[in-house]
Amino acid sequence: MVNNFTVDEQALSQRLMNYRREFHRYPESAWCEFFTTSRIAGHLQLLGYELCFSDAIIARDTIMGRDDANIVKAQERAITWGAQLEFLAQMDGVTGVGAILDTGRPGPVMAIRFDIDAVDVMESQDDSHRPRFLGFASLAPGVAHACGHDAHAAIGLGIAEVLAENKDTLCGKIKLLFQPAEEGCRAGKAIAESGWLDDVDYFFAAHIGMNVPSGTLVCDPQHFLCSSKFDLHFSGKPAHAGIEPNAGRNALAAACTAVSQMLAIPRHRDGMTRVNVGQLHAGDGRNVIPANAVLMGETRGENRELNNYMYQQVEQIAQASAMMHGVQVDIKAQGEAIGLQNDTELVELIAKVGPQSGFTEIIQAKDFGASEDAGYLVDRVQSRGGKAIYCLVGSDLTAGHHNGDFDIDESRMLPAVKLFINAIRQVQTTVDPDDIA
Amino acid sequence: MVNNFTVDEQALSQRLMNYRREFHRYPESAWCEFFTTSRIAGHLQLLGYELCFSDAIIARDTIMGRDDANIVKAQERAITWGAQLEFLAQMDGVTGVGAILDTGRPGPVMAIRFDIDAVDVMESQDDSHRPRFLGFASLAPGVAHACGHDAHAAIGLGIAEVLAENKDTLCGKIKLLFQPAEEGCRAGKAIAESGWLDDVDYFFAAHIGMNVPSGTLVCDPQHFLCSSKFDLHFSGKPAHAGIEPNAGRNALAAACTAVSQMLAIPRHRDGMTRVNVGQLHAGDGRNVIPANAVLMGETRGENRELNNYMYQQVEQIAQASAMMHGVQVDIKAQGEAIGLQNDTELVELIAKVGPQSGFTEIIQAKDFGASEDAGYLVDRVQSRGGKAIYCLVGSDLTAGHHNGDFDIDESRMLPAVKLFINAIRQVQTTVDPDDIA
Amino acid sequence: MVNNFTVDEQALSQRLMNYRREFHRYPESAWCEFFTTSRIAGHLQLLGYELCFSDAIIARDTIMGRDDANIVKAQERAITWGAQLEFLAQMDGVTGVGAILDTGRPGPVMAIRFDIDAVDVMESQDDSHRPRFLGFASLAPGVAHACGHDAHAAIGLGIAEVLAENKDTLCGKIKLLFQPAEEGCRAGKAIAESGWLDDVDYFFAAHIGMNVPSGTLVCDPQHFLCSSKFDLHFSGKPAHAGIEPNAGRNALAAACTAVSQMLAIPRHRDGMTRVNVGQLHAGDGRNVIPANAVLMGETRGENRELNNYMYQQVEQIAQASAMMHGVQVDIKAQGEAIGLQNDTELVELIAKVGPQSGFTEIIQAKDFGASEDAGYLVDRVQSRGGKAIYCLVGSDLTAGHHNGDFDIDESRMLPAVKLFINAIRQVQTTVDPDDIA
Amino acid sequence: MVNNFTVDEQALSQRLMNYRREFHRYPESAWCEFFTTSRIAGHLQLLGYELCFSDAIIARDTIMGRDDANIVKAQERAITWGAQLEFLAQMDGVTGVGAILDTGRPGPVMAIRFDIDAVDVMESQDDSHRPRFLGFASLAPGVAHACGHDAHAAIGLGIAEVLAENKDTLCGKIKLLFQPAEEGCRAGKAIAESGWLDDVDYFFAAHIGMNVPSGTLVCDPQHFLCSSKFDLHFSGKPAHAGIEPNAGRNALAAACTAVSQMLAIPRHRDGMTRVNVGQLHAGDGRNVIPANAVLMGETRGENRELNNYMYQQVEQIAQASAMMHGVQVDIKAQGEAIGLQNDTELVELIAKVGPQSGFTEIIQAKDFGASEDAGYLVDRVQSRGGKAIYCLVGSDLTAGHHNGDFDIDESRMLPAVKLFINAIRQVQTTVDPDDIA
Repeated sequence: MVNNFTVDEQALSQRLMNYRREFHRYPESAWCEFFTTSRIAGHLQLLGYELCFSDAIIARDTIMGRDDANIVKAQERAITWGAQLEFLAQMDGVTGVGAILDTGRPGPVMAIRFDIDAVDVMESQDDSHRPRFLGFASLAPGVAHACGHDAHAAIGLGIAEVLAENKDTLCGKIKLLFQPAEEGCRAGKAIAESGWLDDVDYFFAAHIGMNVPSGTLVCDPQHFLCSSKFDLHFSGKPAHAGIEPNAGRNALAAACTAVSQMLAIPRHRDGMTRVNVGQLHAGDGRNVIPANAVLMGETRGENRELNNYMYQQVEQIAQASAMMHGVQVDIKAQGEAIGLQNDTELVELIAKVGPQSGFTEIIQAKDFGASEDAGYLVDRVQSRGGKAIYCLVGSDLTAGHHNGDFDIDESRMLPAVKLFINAIRQVQTTVDPDDIA
Repeated sequence: MVNNFTVDEQALSQRLMNYRREFHRYPESAWCEFFTTSRIAGHLQLLGYELCFSDAIIARDTIMGRDDANIVKAQERAITWGAQLEFLAQMDGVTGVGAILDTGRPGPVMAIRFDIDAVDVMESQDDSHRPRFLGFASLAPGVAHACGHDAHAAIGLGIAEVLAENKDTLCGKIKLLFQPAEEGCRAGKAIAESGWLDDVDYFFAAHIGMNVPSGTLVCDPQHFLCSSKFDLHFSGKPAHAGIEPNAGRNALAAACTAVSQMLAIPRHRDGMTRVNVGQLHAGDGRNVIPANAVLMGETRGENRELNNYMYQQVEQIAQASAMMHGVQVDIKAQGEAIGLQNDTELVELIAKVGPQSGFTEIIQAKDFGASEDAGYLVDRVQSRGGKAIYCLVGSDLTAGHHNGDFDIDESRMLPAVKLFINAIRQVQTTVDPDDIA
Repeated sequence: MVNNFTVDEQALSQRLMNYRREFHRYPESAWCEFFTTSRIAGHLQLLGYELCFSDAIIARDTIMGRDDANIVKAQERAITWGAQLEFLAQMDGVTGVGAILDTGRPGPVMAIRFDIDAVDVMESQDDSHRPRFLGFASLAPGVAHACGHDAHAAIGLGIAEVLAENKDTLCGKIKLLFQPAEEGCRAGKAIAESGWLDDVDYFFAAHIGMNVPSGTLVCDPQHFLCSSKFDLHFSGKPAHAGIEPNAGRNALAAACTAVSQMLAIPRHRDGMTRVNVGQLHAGDGRNVIPANAVLMGETRGENRELNNYMYQQVEQIAQASAMMHGVQVDIKAQGEAIGLQNDTELVELIAKVGPQSGFTEIIQAKDFGASEDAGYLVDRVQSRGGKAIYCLVGSDLTAGHHNGDFDIDESRMLPAVKLFINAIRQVQTTVDPDDIA
Repeated sequence: MVNNFTVDEQALSQRLMNYRREFHRYPESAWCEFFTTSRIAGHLQLLGYELCFSDAIIARDTIMGRDDANIVKAQERAITWGAQLEFLAQMDGVTGVGAILDTGRPGPVMAIRFDIDAVDVMESQDDSHRPRFLGFASLAPGVAHACGHDAHAAIGLGIAEVLAENKDTLCGKIKLLFQPAEEGCRAGKAIAESGWLDDVDYFFAAHIGMNVPSGTLVCDPQHFLCSSKFDLHFSGKPAHAGIEPNAGRNALAAACTAVSQMLAIPRHRDGMTRVNVGQLHAGDGRNVIPANAVLMGETRGENRELNNYMYQQVEQIAQASAMMHGVQVDIKAQGEAIGLQNDTELVELIAKVGPQSGFTEIIQAKDFGASEDAGYLVDRVQSRGGKAIYCLVGSDLTAGHHNGDFDIDESRMLPAVKLFINAIRQVQTTVDPDDIA
């Protein structure tokens, strides 16, 4: 039961599933969520929310990892899928939507964030894969909701419904942020810098799954990794590989050298570090010395110093690999995640409302072991005097995140909705309005 | 002056230029030459040639390096560009066309071969690039006639015109082969095995440019390289690069290891060898251990033993790279070139008619230093008792073959037409019909 | 003041310094400590200890990382330096000595272990390096006591003196183990398997320095790394590098591939891992394809599973590197360290006697972050029902362990002697004799 | 029969064998030939030659690839083996000896050069290896006459004998050069620059074996490779590999990167190139990040441009490898070979006297395919107006040059002696003294 709220839980649960399956069917990569944003905006508009798009929620000049070439195609596809032109116009090329429910009564400003982008992963074609045999598998080859953001978006709409229905019993202002481009940590900084969250007193976010089983709530995940996302562009000189191999400057050879060496950056005394090259594309013709190569990589570290150590090594290796093969290299930042530290007050609050929201096990700390774009949002809110929390909503998974066989336990969306609703109610009933900054 | 033939040289030269520029504008990669084939077939049909398509000229089961995925798109684009549906139907998915001019009089069977495919190279965007400022630059981004096959096709049409006009003065049978997929040595074997050349007594082929200046004819190029074209497909296991890097099997790392090691195959005592990896594509997402990688490579050798040495090393390196990273590898043959040895009789014949055809310098031998798909055709003709020759028609170039800035000296097409016409006439006048096998 | 013991602390401190400086001057690598063992044995014999050598303390068939070729030279040098032939004979080629003080009175069996080998590091030639300007620098180029085992041996002799002088006030049996070949974790297993410690009720060991400052005692260091030491022997085929490079099988190329790839073994989700190749020697002549290469490496892991993961990757990489270059590889185990877990009872005991022994700061837990051969000894004692502890005796250092500039704070040896003496006294006064197994 | 000379061929043949076997037994590496030089000088002195040592024949400041550290040991060993102190004093640390036979009669100045150094190769321990079962195997482990220079030195002494005995029938001046350090092309430049050969009108040199069978004489070997010999010294920073791997700067990793990349320097359009790393030594301790690494390499090219291309790539790779791993690199030149072009006049002369000297087959041209330090000597003589030749004396071999199983056909030394004696006679009888520069 959701505390003091009017909710038909069974119907809500069904709608959450419908929402999630639709998003799953139409997955869109980071910065390409035109259809997804449009659908979300449509629902929110009907529910009476004030909508914020584009520059209102995102500082364009700090956007990372957005490739103009993909945007046009993504918009065209979104239109094909049924995106509303009105919303596309308001987005003005930048996805995501912020929604505001202003109760008109004094009270805290509370925000909840839901990330909505899919991953560039080929979804399983296996008949035993549930989205496939139930008919809601990805319609975009090579893109899939293999991280659970489809569920996040659905949970966001579910919360939006409950809040709208119960607006009269609420006070203060509630902001729902449907964030684009979480994958690759590409949007967090730009959203933070837009200032849209600057008046927020309480900020909430969550992730489903993350190796936490169904029924369990992790209140205070630890060790969020700092991360830098980057592209390396190598450019050399083509030559006929048979006639004059010496005349070429081999960009692919440089890239391969860089990959091998980056994977061998020494481990660090002070803790966990990571490096990955997730993609490499190089060359034009089989018999031409490849004159260009692009690789997409990332570093991580348990803290900023460790991530900086890794990234500096990447820069050194990139330069040396280019020098080795007589080619040029260009290093382009594509995303960045900083750490994330929850506020104790909210950790306790979430732990308190967990059991009444349908969680059977409440865990305090657990290693997160990955990076989260929410770090920038949490940092922004906290730096302005607000409190923030990012927690984990357990869900049994069919495969690890970013794996083509990934699927969630859909029954875990309702507890997530209830968790945030109860948290909001809890804040509104216990917080002394005078405490609000 | 073309020996004993009725030709308006000035008009022919203009038409050669028009032909070549049209082909240049609509470049099509190997096995995708649907528009090019259709245009050629249209001209030949009007000139009265008997046309041969598909299985008549190509043994499908020995085709190499043809990717079904590209074919449909290529056909669609060809239709957009104006290809005739009638010819597309006759091609039945396999490009190229053979044309037969049967004089009805006894005499030798003579064949001339023209290769018609473009290269996967981005054409120069520089304003000083002639195709660009004269408006016949490539309409297909990333594909360009940067090897001169547009000129070859034009020369073929020019010869077809002259022969058709002078049919009454000719004897025997003349076959014109407009060959697809020379790049990558992908079609030669399949054409040879179709048997279409099995009745040929005299076989001619040529390449324009090849570091031979305008005005020069090289009668007997040497050292054609044997070559093997191959793709390596590495498949591993994806994993979240931050959460559990140890759980992945890194196909990209394996591919990079393979590239670095292939480039380091030891030089061989017995002569020239080559290896190149022209393309590499790997990975799905930045933060996912790449589970797949495909690389496109080739080996070459001055003779079959040397090429075999190189290819065996490639196989060993491919297997070891896969083992190193715990991934699978699949080696797929994509093309193959054998050597090429001219017949002295035809070398002498070509040297004799060169001066009267517009060549000011006649050179006997010169290193070729590359691979030629014609090797299979020459070998087939010779193995059946015929004579064959492959020569080089000089042309000043603006840049090396397969370079985006490549352009030819168009005035060198007319001498090529005259060379072959004169060679045919010479054969017909000097050869004792009883000598014909 | 040492609790209830007759000791002239000032004189003892001077002797500790003298002992340590002599050992420092005559450093001997693992399994080569013939002079060192002889000197220690000489002192112990004079003090009345029963001495145990060779098979009595070391199970020869489980010895690791001992190269017969070095042993003879090491013995010859030891004789030059003044080793006693009588002790050399008793060692029978295997260094180290165990000493027993049997009080004749009932009581526990207690053992303290001191490791005595030096490191293969070139000692600093800098005039500001104290061993150099005070004249006790290493006489063996390339070998140095850069880890502090000279101090360990000196502390052992100091303890031996105090115990012998106070024998009448002691009960039970005390065993002092002067262990060879701790570096590289080469002797622990063989000593454990000899059974010499099987009757031990209380086992003590310590390391000086380890980033712990002078005056501090760390009672319970954590995270001892499991480790495997290995040599890879690559053997290929020589060939003249100019005349027929293809005829060689390049063992150096294989070794270099292995090094690069081993350094790139993916980090592991579950915790800290390490890999190092500390030495590589390959080849015979500049113009000969190198037919042999030997590399010396090690893996580490926070626990056995992690170390196994690393070692399995090493094996895979070794095999694949050999396959890559058509050479053979032989993997030879050279040492192994397992974890180490202190007994709480002894941790508390050490913490209690620390302050009275001259330590001004007592720290409970601290990351060890390296491997210790004592793990096998601790494991053996514990598996037989005994208690064991390994602690850290702080000492300011002039440079990190295994660095040529390494030097200790000699004044920290006396507190170490007092610590163990007081611990022994404490055990003997508090332990109920009936508790002894 | 030797033309017009008094020679007891059977006795000479026996002495050649004795000479050769003694040199074989006492092999000395480049710049270490103190015993060898002393023995040769002893014989020559007895035969009445004027001897030239040290600065008289070698310009010290252009010496390459000589390591002072080895010289003292080599001298000590030479003394042990019986070298004469008088000669050692004259050598003054620099090996090799020049001998002059001045007939006192007008005539040309003729020089013959014999190289005398051994190779750093372990001689076969196989019982079927002739030097082993006949008891003249190398007494210096790791050094062997595996290139045939023992035979060269013996041939030189044989010629010295014949010339001395027949001095009265000769005119002009004859110089015999017993050259050190041919391996690695380390002495040629320094000898040339000493000016000792500046008055030479006719210069002769030869190599035994080189894939030429017994009985065959190759008069004009072709394609001498230009070559650069170099050492790379990498220096980084040590660190404990377990405790703080990030603190090290890995010189071994840099060296391995350099090796892998050097082996992958692209082949060159213009002809044969070679690269080899013959030795690599790195690191101090197994668990220390290696702070130093030395590798010994060489490049070759069919001509100077090609060798320069290779060497420039090596420099680039060395710098980039150091940058990659944050270490320093020092590139030290260790030897250099330039091309070699015989004079036609001498080629014809040698071809003429070959049959009468015991050669049954005379071959004109043959690929040499390696580098020769004689290039500098030939170049010096030719640049001063003299004529020069370097030819190949066939000998069946038991294994390739620089292989531990290498052994020659000793019966082929006599024909070599006769060849040069006959060549000298031929020059003296046919050359018009007025022609001599």
